[in-house]
Amino acid sequence: MPRTQYAVGVDFGGTTIKTGLVTSEGKIIAQSKFPTMGEQGPRAVILQMEKSITEVLAHAKKKTLRGIGIGSPGIVDQKNGVVNDPPNIKGWRRVALGEEIKRIFKLKVELENDANVAAIAEAKFGAGRRHPNFLFVIWGTGVGGGIILDRKIFRGPHGGAGEIGHVSIDYEGLQCNCGARGCVEAYIGQRNLSQRAIERLRQHPASRILELVGGDISKVEPIFISQAALEGDGLAREIFTEAGTLLGVALGSVLNTIDLRVVIIGGGISGAGDFVYDAIKKSAQAHVMKSMQKDIMVIPAKLGNAAGILGAAGLVL
Amino acid sequence: MPRTQYAVGVDFGGTTIKTGLVTSEGKIIAQSKFPTMGEQGPRAVILQMEKSITEVLAHAKKKTLRGIGIGSPGIVDQKNGVVNDPPNIKGWRRVALGEEIKRIFKLKVELENDANVAAIAEAKFGAGRRHPNFLFVIWGTGVGGGIILDRKIFRGPHGGAGEIGHVSIDYEGLQCNCGARGCVEAYIGQRNLSQRAIERLRQHPASRILELVGGDISKVEPIFISQAALEGDGLAREIFTEAGTLLGVALGSVLNTIDLRVVIIGGGISGAGDFVYDAIKKSAQAHVMKSMQKDIMVIPAKLGNAAGILGAAGLVL
Repeated sequence: MPRTQYAVGVDFGGTTIKTGLVTSEGKIIAQSKFPTMGEQGPRAVILQMEKSITEVLAHAKKKTLRGIGIGSPGIVDQKNGVVNDPPNIKGWRRVALGEEIKRIFKLKVELENDANVAAIAEAKFGAGRRHPNFLFVIWGTGVGGGIILDRKIFRGPHGGAGEIGHVSIDYEGLQCNCGARGCVEAYIGQRNLSQRAIERLRQHPASRILELVGGDISKVEPIFISQAALEGDGLAREIFTEAGTLLGVALGSVLNTIDLRVVIIGGGISGAGDFVYDAIKKSAQAHVMKSMQKDIMVIPAKLGNAAGILGAAGLVL
Repeated sequence: MPRTQYAVGVDFGGTTIKTGLVTSEGKIIAQSKFPTMGEQGPRAVILQMEKSITEVLAHAKKKTLRGIGIGSPGIVDQKNGVVNDPPNIKGWRRVALGEEIKRIFKLKVELENDANVAAIAEAKFGAGRRHPNFLFVIWGTGVGGGIILDRKIFRGPHGGAGEIGHVSIDYEGLQCNCGARGCVEAYIGQRNLSQRAIERLRQHPASRILELVGGDISKVEPIFISQAALEGDGLAREIFTEAGTLLGVALGSVLNTIDLRVVIIGGGISGAGDFVYDAIKKSAQAHVMKSMQKDIMVIPAKLGNAAGILGAAGLVL
């Protein structure tokens, strides 16, 4: 048996930086968590990251350490280790984060965007271990994606592949934050789901959703709709079933384009229950080529919040 | 200078089999054309193909001959050289065409579906020579595609990538022949374009389209709409501009997914004039991520009808 290797995985988020020491088998053996301090600008953020990495490195033996992987928000130039315009970090336009961290720790450093990192985590350690090719969907505030081909991340010719939240499902559809019309994210992202629930609650005042927010309709969020759905609330299930059906339309387009058959779904909204997966699958099947229909699988991600650390470590393992 | 190599390219179509002897520089130096005889079944078709290949092989020197490439309709199992269910050929379910041709000519034989073959032709000898990564679109009876990454065809994990005609542009949209709703092909394929023109001609009896079909509305086809558009007919231009705009929506989804920036458009309907390319480009730009918008290019294919022979030869060159 080869000796276990270790890597540091950094989950660089808008509010917290979570770092773990990860084994080549995908076990997190030490962890740290620091506030990102994005409001204080890039230097402060990098200092927080340094502290976070230093803390877990105390548990590592240098000889078996493969390096540091970082999953980052913003537009990540993976080749040059540069992070451009991450949201929620003041004054961060273009920072060579890879170089900075390498200079501090003298270790190999790899960067990747957060959706791809989560896809890599599922491929190496999660629901994707049995599937060499799949589309990973992160369904939360927005809708993101990562494409795994032959167990490796597919970045496309310019590094930005997998923007499946901006697949249009209606050419005359809703306006999306990105400027385009009909993007699936504009229908099923966190804000739109809440909006949809709020509109319908006026006609369904007895819904469990309203109870869960203590009658304060302005507090409606997907987490409560999800909770109500799990408890069997009709309106909550209707909202998620519709959202899953719309997601399935976009997935159909993506699967037809790349000829993928397996979809793994993670992110905050993905825990609403089996009926959501059924809705997504049924709709995706109805939108792919006949020859693919019987092979379509839509399954939940396995790693939850740990995906960020695990996938980041996976960049160097 | 290395000696010029030669290959046989077979463009296996529903009505004719066109075969050429092609140089490694992409010149066709001999050609033959035979009726497919699809109504007489697979054996007759293979005999026609044998005749067609034999005729051009008379012009070849064995020493510099690299083999035979075949572009085929139907579902092509490229690895095993098998063609499944080509339309318009009686009784052809699953035929090991590659083996058959190899047995007859004792040459290396490669098979590929016709959209991918046209994409390969443009990549090697046409509008794609300057673009290592592009999406090829074939816009004719239907809408097909081929994806070129790093100058090679991208087939996807199961060999069927590029079915961009079945990208949905409206989740509540038109019914497509494939069974799904909203596929872009259902809006801009040959039949739908004609239908759209016929409906509008009732309100535009002075349109040049009607003159071109001698007043017989049942004869309206994209070729006439295209001709009228080139001559400046308002209705014809309107129909193509709308169709181009809808195609652009689907392209936006595909470009966002794979992170491609260049689209090359071929097929029978692609010759309607620059204004169609402008409409496609404008719409695609409006549907891709902001960071990609300035790099979007939509350009016409260069090889026209020769793409089938050239791309097929390109499979073995």
